[in-house]
Amino acid sequence: MDKFYALSFLCVALAFAFAIYLYFWVKKQPMENKTIADVSALIKAGANTFMRREYKVLAIFACVVAILIFLLLPSPIWSGGSIADNISMAIAYIAGTVLSAIAGKMGIVVATHANGRAAEGAQHGIKPAFLVGFRGGAIMGLAVVGFSLFGVAAVLLIFDDSSIILGFSFGASSLALFAKAGGGIFTKTADVSADLTGKVELGIPEDDPRNPAVIADNVGDNVGDVAGMGADLFDSNVAAMASALVIAESLGGGANTQMVFCYAALGLLASIIGIATARVGKDGNPTKALNSSTYVTTAVFLILTAGATLLFEGFSWRVWGAAAVGLLVGVIIGLTTDYFTDDTKPIVQKVAHASKSGPAFTVLSGVSYGFISALPAMVGIAVSALIAYYLCAPMGDGYAIYGIAMAAVGMLSIVGMIISNDAYGPIVDNSRGLAEMGGLGEETIRIADELDSAGNTVKAVTKGFSISAAGLTVISLLGAFMSEANVALAAAGKELLTGFDIMDPLVFFGVLIGAAIPAVFSAMLILGVDKNAQRMVAEIHRQFNTILGLREGKPGVKPEYDKCIDIATSGALKELIPAGLMAIISTLVVGFIGGPKAIGGFLLGNIVSGLLLALFMSNSGGLWDNSKKYVEAGNEGGKGSEAHKAAVVGDTVGDPFKDTAGPSINTQITVVSLVSSLMSTLFVAVSIF
Amino acid sequence: MDKFYALSFLCVALAFAFAIYLYFWVKKQPMENKTIADVSALIKAGANTFMRREYKVLAIFACVVAILIFLLLPSPIWSGGSIADNISMAIAYIAGTVLSAIAGKMGIVVATHANGRAAEGAQHGIKPAFLVGFRGGAIMGLAVVGFSLFGVAAVLLIFDDSSIILGFSFGASSLALFAKAGGGIFTKTADVSADLTGKVELGIPEDDPRNPAVIADNVGDNVGDVAGMGADLFDSNVAAMASALVIAESLGGGANTQMVFCYAALGLLASIIGIATARVGKDGNPTKALNSSTYVTTAVFLILTAGATLLFEGFSWRVWGAAAVGLLVGVIIGLTTDYFTDDTKPIVQKVAHASKSGPAFTVLSGVSYGFISALPAMVGIAVSALIAYYLCAPMGDGYAIYGIAMAAVGMLSIVGMIISNDAYGPIVDNSRGLAEMGGLGEETIRIADELDSAGNTVKAVTKGFSISAAGLTVISLLGAFMSEANVALAAAGKELLTGFDIMDPLVFFGVLIGAAIPAVFSAMLILGVDKNAQRMVAEIHRQFNTILGLREGKPGVKPEYDKCIDIATSGALKELIPAGLMAIISTLVVGFIGGPKAIGGFLLGNIVSGLLLALFMSNSGGLWDNSKKYVEAGNEGGKGSEAHKAAVVGDTVGDPFKDTAGPSINTQITVVSLVSSLMSTLFVAVSIF
Repeated sequence: MDKFYALSFLCVALAFAFAIYLYFWVKKQPMENKTIADVSALIKAGANTFMRREYKVLAIFACVVAILIFLLLPSPIWSGGSIADNISMAIAYIAGTVLSAIAGKMGIVVATHANGRAAEGAQHGIKPAFLVGFRGGAIMGLAVVGFSLFGVAAVLLIFDDSSIILGFSFGASSLALFAKAGGGIFTKTADVSADLTGKVELGIPEDDPRNPAVIADNVGDNVGDVAGMGADLFDSNVAAMASALVIAESLGGGANTQMVFCYAALGLLASIIGIATARVGKDGNPTKALNSSTYVTTAVFLILTAGATLLFEGFSWRVWGAAAVGLLVGVIIGLTTDYFTDDTKPIVQKVAHASKSGPAFTVLSGVSYGFISALPAMVGIAVSALIAYYLCAPMGDGYAIYGIAMAAVGMLSIVGMIISNDAYGPIVDNSRGLAEMGGLGEETIRIADELDSAGNTVKAVTKGFSISAAGLTVISLLGAFMSEANVALAAAGKELLTGFDIMDPLVFFGVLIGAAIPAVFSAMLILGVDKNAQRMVAEIHRQFNTILGLREGKPGVKPEYDKCIDIATSGALKELIPAGLMAIISTLVVGFIGGPKAIGGFLLGNIVSGLLLALFMSNSGGLWDNSKKYVEAGNEGGKGSEAHKAAVVGDTVGDPFKDTAGPSINTQITVVSLVSSLMSTLFVAVSIF
Repeated sequence: MDKFYALSFLCVALAFAFAIYLYFWVKKQPMENKTIADVSALIKAGANTFMRREYKVLAIFACVVAILIFLLLPSPIWSGGSIADNISMAIAYIAGTVLSAIAGKMGIVVATHANGRAAEGAQHGIKPAFLVGFRGGAIMGLAVVGFSLFGVAAVLLIFDDSSIILGFSFGASSLALFAKAGGGIFTKTADVSADLTGKVELGIPEDDPRNPAVIADNVGDNVGDVAGMGADLFDSNVAAMASALVIAESLGGGANTQMVFCYAALGLLASIIGIATARVGKDGNPTKALNSSTYVTTAVFLILTAGATLLFEGFSWRVWGAAAVGLLVGVIIGLTTDYFTDDTKPIVQKVAHASKSGPAFTVLSGVSYGFISALPAMVGIAVSALIAYYLCAPMGDGYAIYGIAMAAVGMLSIVGMIISNDAYGPIVDNSRGLAEMGGLGEETIRIADELDSAGNTVKAVTKGFSISAAGLTVISLLGAFMSEANVALAAAGKELLTGFDIMDPLVFFGVLIGAAIPAVFSAMLILGVDKNAQRMVAEIHRQFNTILGLREGKPGVKPEYDKCIDIATSGALKELIPAGLMAIISTLVVGFIGGPKAIGGFLLGNIVSGLLLALFMSNSGGLWDNSKKYVEAGNEGGKGSEAHKAAVVGDTVGDPFKDTAGPSINTQITVVSLVSSLMSTLFVAVSIF
């Protein structure tokens, strides 16, 4: 085992070293334009304000949860178990939150350095600008994967108990819930308010510095899309490893456990290679550059792990197959997502065409294609789970579910590369705004636009990928829950679970309620954005009415940007807490009413409807966004036409779908799964049925 | 048993007699206005055209399916089973389609008689108009329930084999799929096209006779909302009885079977009493009148069945409790639906208020509350299934699932009353249009508006009710599928199913794919409306451009109404078939890949996501419709304001949600469940895994 710890830490060290190199490379790039430097500084300050306040609330939350964990988990301290276990669990939980927070913070720091520099790079062409944007994102990717592998390996090395890793994973999840949902509310509050007051009411451009919400909008791109997405994938990655390790240990550890670490480490290595080789080619197509580095990473991972399977004793080709299937299906799902959201493909164009009949048709066609787009991903997850299961089932009892867990590990192996591509998007999105505010000229803005459009396309792909990865992960978390519940049932001398039968009314009861939760959760987040945007719009109106000369753009008159940032921040935290609590409390209610069987059903319902809604919302949001861009490029009447107005309505509907609710559902599912696993002892001890 | 057959046929006879009385009563009402009589005749002719063409397509479809059934079911004729069984099954299937078609046709005939008479009644006040509308609807209610009970009793009496009833039920389902989805596409095609060209482009009122789509729109109310809804509830009612009977027979029949018939018959009797006593009270509130007759029916049913339980040997109070729980939960779900869709309650008003910020906010808030509105119904179904299960479990092995089936029978017992309330809606909706076209004056239109608004409110309630009833029914269909599959497994000498374990990858595979189907199905229907509306809009433009004097409203110039009816008809049938085939073929694919276990999962996924989406779509559609009405009543700026424009967009999005996709999902679920049960032998014989 020791050599796999060594391999893991070696790859982590490599990743950190490479990230530091990239950091200094980015900082070395020129930043000469005064306006851009000033605005960059404002964005940085705003992002820091949000992060500081968010982490403060989180710290209180984490302390409360840590105390509860210490008192209750893995078993209540008054029940006579080992208090050391409870302390370990609480420490692992805290470690999960802290490492995720550090990774998020790093991403923000780099992104706020990179966006201005990418804007200036765009003055010299697409190649230098692309490289700044991509490498800025890559730092986040390396940090997230490095910290997650480091954390999981360190926790297992120190405590030598795989169920403690569930505590670490829960820490990562609860942070992700705040970062993703809170950041998502923040970013869409600002975006929607800026659009409503600026573009719609005043008719000023998107990034006009007169608009008090414009800096908050840019801050939002960073805190929602960079830090939030990083925390989300940190969470998924840790959860995939954690559930694979829990299952591996229940199979006796050994090569099973070693493969988890080996694959995760080699995935990180493959991502480093992919990141290092990413360049825009001669044709200057940034989308191609991003996609081809994903393929490089995939190929490198498959070769490296095949080598490891040849080399190390006890490594099985069946498990390699499961991981490979997971990864390939992930890539295929990404490509089908692309089909539904790329504006060179028919779907986006159909929605743009429907917009000519008015906004209702933009919405109806977008909703319809969003629903259809969920099918290939659902089938992909279903098929990969089925293949992984049957590949590994002949290895012995319990190996089938291990195969599914390894498919999730395989799918998430290239997550370092995925995050790099994903974080590239908001960085170049900000660059576009900065290029406009800094007056860098038409040609630079055009280049920045091209980079931005590539970011949008790739983002849809990575979103499909990360939702699917979460899907596979939670299947294995269901397995992890069953093994945790059985430990508790065995200790209580009760009958063990052999599965969850849907004809059992307790399971069915759980399924129905579990399925409703993601819908309610998303609704609460969307309504949260809505409420918060109303507050911010009122503040913007106040500023326009009371700050003399602001509306007219009198030189030297500046809006109070920080007021808007403040509203977005406090509102985001206020709106997110009820949604998070709703998900957790409904889990507890179902568990204490129906016990472990009801929870099994609850998790299934939650996974299934959560996947469906997350795919639907993310894809239809991306579809609307790109339809609007397609119309703005001069199609179906172009800017200012009726089709454009309708497309803007679609985009506004899609904003909280794709950036707030859709991607937060992932985290909601993971949080609920981990709460269930951690509480299994209590559900066994105390339940009505 | 004989006395329960007698009781059933007696109640059926009573229902038919009462329906005939009401028919003559309606026909006796005055119809003096020439314009109204003319337009009524046009509507009637249009509805008949649609029904004739629909039934023609259906007849071909039914013949093909009947031949397939004869060849394959219950077991392939070449497999050496009894050919008589195959003939019986095919006959039962045909009977199911024919009885459902007759009930639908009757509803249409009466509705087209009643709408003009209700408009004229409105000249004399709310009481006479209400009575015409309600009694017109009641004829449909009595016919549907009468024919369904008659059919089920006759099939069992003749063939003495409960699994043949599944064939009858499948006949009802396949007709319902056509009637509901086809009618839904028809009605929304016409509605949307009429609105787009009339209200939006020309600025003429909703029911202006210059608009070529206006008659198609009125026809749509009849074929979609009256005939479609009737077929839908015919289907649910038959399916509930069929699954209860299959389970009852597997428990040895006797009192178990008797209770199914007794409860269904007494439910019909209670509906007759409820219908006979319905009157608008002194306060002239039609909503109250509709609701209070529902409560009367509920109370009468509970008392009658309690009496039967005292009286008859072998009747169990536990089963009575299950039925009562089902019914009460149905009523409660109806009331919570009302909370989300009634314009005197806060939710509708909040959505109207959000419309002030533009259509995107109308859509976002409507989607959010629609999602939230699914929770109470899902919890209600979950809780009633759980209670019914535990009430009946002590009666012995297999009684638990019988309890759930009886909860569905209980919930659907008052379906006669529910249909009466529901069919009242489209009748008075048409009356309003006729009052406008006939120039009956402001006050009459105001009264017609009030009746219409009550129809909208009650419709939301009955929709929530019917979706929930379908939910409970399909749970028991899952039980019916398992018992059918076990018969096939036993015959093939394979291991019997004891349930469907979600940790089994085949089950899980089925769950994921099954969950995606309702989303794809709804998307196909919505896109179908969209495509069809584009065709009709083109035709309307052609007429305005080529028929001289039409646009200006020159006296004597009439549009070619029948062209629009023709487009709506052929388009509806064309768009519906791929959606229906998709649902059936995906069931076959999953079954032949994964066998009965995968189908069990498939049905679960289908039920759960289908319920969620059906509730979401129906409720958000109702919510938007009433928000628009609320704004039009002078709130948030009133007619012509920005809020009104936004509310109209919401209403247009909601139209295919609530009248095409949402309520068709019910039928899709039932069709898929019945296909699975019928095909179980083949799935057992031929599957990859």
